[in-house]
Amino acid sequence: MQGKYRALWLNDDNFLEVIDQTKLPFEYETKVLKTTDEVVEAIKDMTVRGAGVIGSVAAFGIYTASMEVDGGYEKLKEKASHIRESRPTAVNLMWAVDKMMELLKDSTDLVGDSKAYAIKLNDEEALESQKIARFGCDIIEDILKQKNKTKINILTHCNAGWLAVIDEGTALAPIYEAQKRGIDVHVWVDETRPRNQGASLTAWELTQSGINHTIIADNTGGHLMQNGMVDMVITGADRISANGDVANKIGTYLKALAAEDNGVPFYVAIPASTFDFDIRDGVKEIPIELRSEDEVKYMRGVDSDGVVREVLVTPKDSPAINYGFDVTPARLITGLITNKGVCEADFDKIREKFNNH
Amino acid sequence: MQGKYRALWLNDDNFLEVIDQTKLPFEYETKVLKTTDEVVEAIKDMTVRGAGVIGSVAAFGIYTASMEVDGGYEKLKEKASHIRESRPTAVNLMWAVDKMMELLKDSTDLVGDSKAYAIKLNDEEALESQKIARFGCDIIEDILKQKNKTKINILTHCNAGWLAVIDEGTALAPIYEAQKRGIDVHVWVDETRPRNQGASLTAWELTQSGINHTIIADNTGGHLMQNGMVDMVITGADRISANGDVANKIGTYLKALAAEDNGVPFYVAIPASTFDFDIRDGVKEIPIELRSEDEVKYMRGVDSDGVVREVLVTPKDSPAINYGFDVTPARLITGLITNKGVCEADFDKIREKFNNH
Repeated sequence: MQGKYRALWLNDDNFLEVIDQTKLPFEYETKVLKTTDEVVEAIKDMTVRGAGVIGSVAAFGIYTASMEVDGGYEKLKEKASHIRESRPTAVNLMWAVDKMMELLKDSTDLVGDSKAYAIKLNDEEALESQKIARFGCDIIEDILKQKNKTKINILTHCNAGWLAVIDEGTALAPIYEAQKRGIDVHVWVDETRPRNQGASLTAWELTQSGINHTIIADNTGGHLMQNGMVDMVITGADRISANGDVANKIGTYLKALAAEDNGVPFYVAIPASTFDFDIRDGVKEIPIELRSEDEVKYMRGVDSDGVVREVLVTPKDSPAINYGFDVTPARLITGLITNKGVCEADFDKIREKFNNH
Repeated sequence: MQGKYRALWLNDDNFLEVIDQTKLPFEYETKVLKTTDEVVEAIKDMTVRGAGVIGSVAAFGIYTASMEVDGGYEKLKEKASHIRESRPTAVNLMWAVDKMMELLKDSTDLVGDSKAYAIKLNDEEALESQKIARFGCDIIEDILKQKNKTKINILTHCNAGWLAVIDEGTALAPIYEAQKRGIDVHVWVDETRPRNQGASLTAWELTQSGINHTIIADNTGGHLMQNGMVDMVITGADRISANGDVANKIGTYLKALAAEDNGVPFYVAIPASTFDFDIRDGVKEIPIELRSEDEVKYMRGVDSDGVVREVLVTPKDSPAINYGFDVTPARLITGLITNKGVCEADFDKIREKFNNH
C-alpha cells in the first residue's frame, strides 16, 4: 500500500513503517515500528503526527501489539490502552484504538484480523480524504465564482496534508483537488510555531506537488486578511465537540478571529471520526496537551554546511510554556468540510448529519 | 550617560556607541557608529531597533553626520534624509530627524549644537518613559483592585523595553514600575517571529531585572486569554495615526482581536512622538515595511557547544514573505498609555490631548 502520498505503510516484512516527520524537510527517513513501545514513542515524539495519521498508526499499532501478546485479548487491551494514552488531544487516536478493539472482541486470530482491520480502516480513511477533497474544492469554485476571480489564495495553519491524514489530508485535500481541476491556487503557509509543521511539512508537501505557496510567520495572517490577500482559510482539526468547537494546533483560534473580523470564510476540514460527541462544550471541556518547553526554546534547521542542528533561541534560563492546541469556538467557523459533505458548526446540524456515525 | 539600562550612549571619544541587539541574548556586544553610513546600516540591519531607540540613534546620527559634512547645513540635510529613509514604518525616526534639522536650522556650530540637542532629546525621552511607567502602573493597580487579585499577568508582544525606548521602554515601563512598587507581576512574552525580539530581547531584559516571565509561541496568546490567564495586554507602537490606529510589530493585531474576544484590556504604551497626525486612517494609509524573506527562513541560536549559528528552518526553495508590521484598528484598543496620561484611541480625544505636541 505504499504510495507516493502515504505517511505509513506495511513493509515487505509486514511491519509498520512510517516517514520520520521530525526529520522533514531536511532529510527523508523512515522508521520501522516493531513493538508497542516503539509505536507509542513514535506518537509521543511526533515521528508521526497529524490527526488521521496518528489514528492510522494506532490501528496498525494494535496489529503490532497483537504480535507481542501471544493471543490474549485481555493482554492486548493493556497494550491498547498504552497506545490510546500516548497523546491526549487526538480523538482519532482514541477512536481508532476503540474501533480496533471492538472489532477484535470475538476474534480467534488477533494477528490476522488486526492486520486486515487496520488495512481496511486505513483504506476507508483514504476514501474519506478524497470526499473531503471534492466537497472542499466545490467551495473553492463557489468562492471564485462569487468573487469573479480566477486565482484563489488559501491560508492554512499547521499541516493537514497527506503527512497528517491518509491519503491527501484534510485541509490540503481541497487544494490538491483544485490543482487537479486546473484551478490557479496559492497557499499562505503559517509557519506554525513551536514545531513549525507549516514551514517544514506543509511547505515540503506543496513543493513535492508543485503547488504555489508562500511561508509566513504565524503573526502575519491578520495583516494579509485585513488587506484582502486571503480568500479563505482551511485548517484541519484534532477534535471537534458536539457543538462544533474545534480543537486544532495552537494559533488556529487567532486566525479564526482575524477571518471573522475581515469577512474571510473560515473552514475546518475533517473526517467524521474527528467528532467527540461526549463533549458538549469544546472551549470548556476539550483537554489541551501541554508539551515540553524545549519545543519553544530550541529550533531545528540546517546550517550552511548542510548539517541538521538544534539551536537555543531564547535566554537559557527563561522559562517557556507550550500548549499544543487551542479551541476555536463554533461561532467563528463558516463550515465543516467533511466526508459527508459540508456542515454548519452547530449542535443540531452536526447531530442531524452525523447521527449514525 | 551610559547606564545599566541604556541601549546607546556617547563613548569617551564622543562617538555614538550602541548595544548590538542582533547578538542578544547570546552575546553582549557593542558597536561604535562613526559615520552616517554606519548609522543607516545599524538601523537597517536592526543592530538597533525599537521605535524610541531608532529615534535616539537618528538624533545622534545627525550629530555623527555633522562631523562628516564640514559645516554646511545643506550638506547635512542630504545626510539627514539618508537617515530618515532607513526604515519606513518608524515615525519616531522621521520625527527625530526633522526635529533635529529644525533645531539646527540657524546653528553656527552644527557639531556642538547637534550633540547638545541629541543629548537633550534623549533625556526628554527618558523622562517620557518614566511618566509612561507611572501612568501604566496606575492602570495595573486599578485592574488588581477591580479583580481583587494580588498578582498581575501581562502579555506583551515584541520588545518595547529599554532596548527599544530610552530608558525603561514603553510597554515594559509600567512593568518595571510595578516591580518598584512591590507588585507581583508575571509577563507572558510573545516570541515575536520572525525576528524573535520577544524571546530574545524582552526575555533577556526581564531576566536582567529578575522579573518573572514565561516565553510563549506567538500562537499561544489566544488560548491564554480564553482561559483567564491574561489580565491585560501592553504593547508598544511604531506609529499611531490621528484616529488611533496602531502600527506595531506584525501579530499585534491578532492579540488585540483575542483580547477583545475575551474582555481583556488591551493597552498601547507610547511617547507622544509616536503620533503621525498626517495620517487619518491608519489601517489604510500607514505604509508597512516589507523585509527580507530570509528573516522567516533562517533562525539564529546557539548550539550545544555554545556557538551562535544560523539555520534554515524551511525547505530551501519555498518562498516566504515578511511584513514587519500590522495595524491594529483603534476600536480594539482600550487605551493609549502616554507621557501625558492615558488617552482613548479616538480621533477627537487624541487631538484634544496632543494638540500642541
